[in-house]
Amino acid sequence: MEERGLDGAIVSGPARGNPTLAYLLGGAAVSQGIVVKKRGEPPFFVHSPIEREEAAATGMRLVNMSEYGYIDILRAKGNRLDADVELYRRILDGLDVRGEVGFYGVADQGKAYLFLQALDRALPDVHVRGEYEQGLFDIARATKDEAEVALIREAGRKTAAVINGTVAFMRRHRVVDETLVTDDGSPLTVGRVKQEILRLLAERGMEDPEGVIFAIGREGGVPHNKGGANTPIRLGQTIVYDLYPRGADGYFFDCTRTFCLGYAPPEVQQVYQDVADCVDAVVAAIKVGVEARALQRLTCEFFEARGHPTIASDPKTERGYVHSVSHGLGLAVHEEPRFSDVPSNTQTLQPGHVFTVEPGLYYPDRGYGIRIEDVVWIDEQGEVHNLTPLPRELVVEMGA
Amino acid sequence: MEERGLDGAIVSGPARGNPTLAYLLGGAAVSQGIVVKKRGEPPFFVHSPIEREEAAATGMRLVNMSEYGYIDILRAKGNRLDADVELYRRILDGLDVRGEVGFYGVADQGKAYLFLQALDRALPDVHVRGEYEQGLFDIARATKDEAEVALIREAGRKTAAVINGTVAFMRRHRVVDETLVTDDGSPLTVGRVKQEILRLLAERGMEDPEGVIFAIGREGGVPHNKGGANTPIRLGQTIVYDLYPRGADGYFFDCTRTFCLGYAPPEVQQVYQDVADCVDAVVAAIKVGVEARALQRLTCEFFEARGHPTIASDPKTERGYVHSVSHGLGLAVHEEPRFSDVPSNTQTLQPGHVFTVEPGLYYPDRGYGIRIEDVVWIDEQGEVHNLTPLPRELVVEMGA
Repeated sequence: MEERGLDGAIVSGPARGNPTLAYLLGGAAVSQGIVVKKRGEPPFFVHSPIEREEAAATGMRLVNMSEYGYIDILRAKGNRLDADVELYRRILDGLDVRGEVGFYGVADQGKAYLFLQALDRALPDVHVRGEYEQGLFDIARATKDEAEVALIREAGRKTAAVINGTVAFMRRHRVVDETLVTDDGSPLTVGRVKQEILRLLAERGMEDPEGVIFAIGREGGVPHNKGGANTPIRLGQTIVYDLYPRGADGYFFDCTRTFCLGYAPPEVQQVYQDVADCVDAVVAAIKVGVEARALQRLTCEFFEARGHPTIASDPKTERGYVHSVSHGLGLAVHEEPRFSDVPSNTQTLQPGHVFTVEPGLYYPDRGYGIRIEDVVWIDEQGEVHNLTPLPRELVVEMGA
Repeated sequence: MEERGLDGAIVSGPARGNPTLAYLLGGAAVSQGIVVKKRGEPPFFVHSPIEREEAAATGMRLVNMSEYGYIDILRAKGNRLDADVELYRRILDGLDVRGEVGFYGVADQGKAYLFLQALDRALPDVHVRGEYEQGLFDIARATKDEAEVALIREAGRKTAAVINGTVAFMRRHRVVDETLVTDDGSPLTVGRVKQEILRLLAERGMEDPEGVIFAIGREGGVPHNKGGANTPIRLGQTIVYDLYPRGADGYFFDCTRTFCLGYAPPEVQQVYQDVADCVDAVVAAIKVGVEARALQRLTCEFFEARGHPTIASDPKTERGYVHSVSHGLGLAVHEEPRFSDVPSNTQTLQPGHVFTVEPGLYYPDRGYGIRIEDVVWIDEQGEVHNLTPLPRELVVEMGA
């Protein structure tokens, strides 16, 4: 905070879908709250009275929101904007927070604009600040300690088990005319497989808040096509299976495998090998101090050399390599570090970083897409660990 | 929009945890996007190129984000704030949006503050606006059409089935010294029951993004105590079971039942009856045109008349009735209408409103809490429907 000239920081909002608040609360089972941090001091947690026990479990310094009498403030002020400004005046006064104060955590953007403008005007001792890139907590969250890595690794083990369980589930089906069929003779659909995926996740105490990708053939040729619920599962077609579930403790994993059931056409085999080789090339290039954007550049150069179009040569291409190779992973599926290949991205790889490596090649016009995604961690000694306990194999033989 | 003097509205951010964007996108399986609405015109959806197929499925007018060349803008501007302002300048220019423009959708609050200030300064033809209370889309979302009600009703059916399934699961256990035990002789714990709840939800294609409450005895005496994972399930103790899952289409349900396994102490039976009678009294008071805040007032008066403390007489009480009786329900668990008993809350009940009725009484010092929660809908004719297909019974006999 000193480096950024901040005297205080406020992180607020709902506890879910708000990873910075979740980070500070250590996964407490509250629905919302306000964390107030003064430079050089442990933070306070201003919590709802009906969540006082979940708040106490955080071990943080607590302030019960009922102290401020919000309903009385609202009665006196007559509208929520003025009432919220008065509430924050009382909170900041009471905890003696003044000077440059940064605000973080998710909110409706129009409300945040009105509220922070009004607060900045109303409090003479407080200057409201925001951070647009690599904020204080983005940086803190990007570097994982051993306990966080253990949680991500555990999520990885469970994710791999779910992917293996899904493959086993498909293999148990009969095949009629190259299509998998259920006991009643109807085709096995993507929707039915996703139901099985949710069941396998729930068995392991995991959730799928962002929605798994299970996209077959041409559907897998568009990176974020999630897969049509009624699409039948057929032999010899690529299946892009991208699973990014959240463990009970809030940390995500993220893993993609591409499968072909029964057999794979020769062209698919060859392009699969290009993607698999690219994963190895990118992982081999990871080293403390390397620019993050260099991984994206390397991926584009690697695929161009093998004759594939990429967004480096044509930013609008919808064939070949069309996305980013990596993203940080933790309490959000996408977080720091960032890997955009732009000069302003001066981020370098550092010990504690956990991020994906996920090159892919997409040819929707030829009816397929291929992506392989592992998660890597750079430890304190700078050693690179692959946290993905799952082999990369394109062809899955049918039969249990 | 005319009433609010708005010429345009922008709704942006992630698709998940951002109900206003989800509302406009009709549950499209995209990860993010920008919806641009001009007064009197159908909206545009500015989408990611790798999500073009999911975007097309919305049937909206589309703009592919690749049109704007964001990476080139970022290279030219050298930082994300200036690049984002330039991106929006191009979007608003291209779609001919000018005048008073409201901004909606979740974002980091500090970023929203910096971005909207910068945008307002940079675009001479655009005046940036926010709405703090009952925004345009809050109002639109509060009124459900028949299709939305059908989805909530379906979520209600599944939620009731999961609650029944959970009860059946508990009843199948043996009892030793008033404690439920598993096959290996160890106590059945809340954590194990929650695992079963997640399995029952997954079987029905539902998710539990906010985390179920399953709180026994004294734990249930604090309304948002989620229940300790290691707490054993015992006979004769109140179990506050509050389930608020999301269906595959994005709509939530919300239902609470309080159970005692085997038997209920006489005091609990009596207080349970007070809560059940209060549900009936509140539901009986629902009528088009009634002030929403009147339901909260009625609840406090009802409980005071039966000798229970409430937050109306003591805003800081942690015993008796300590929360709000209702909240709107839809694409978020908590949305409009609001029921705060403050003069500024002029909201009246209207056809299309869907909301909870959930009085409760809490005595943590005496080791129990009781809450009952149903969901009601006011149809076009003003008729009130209870969407909760589940009886209210305190005592659950053990045995399958």
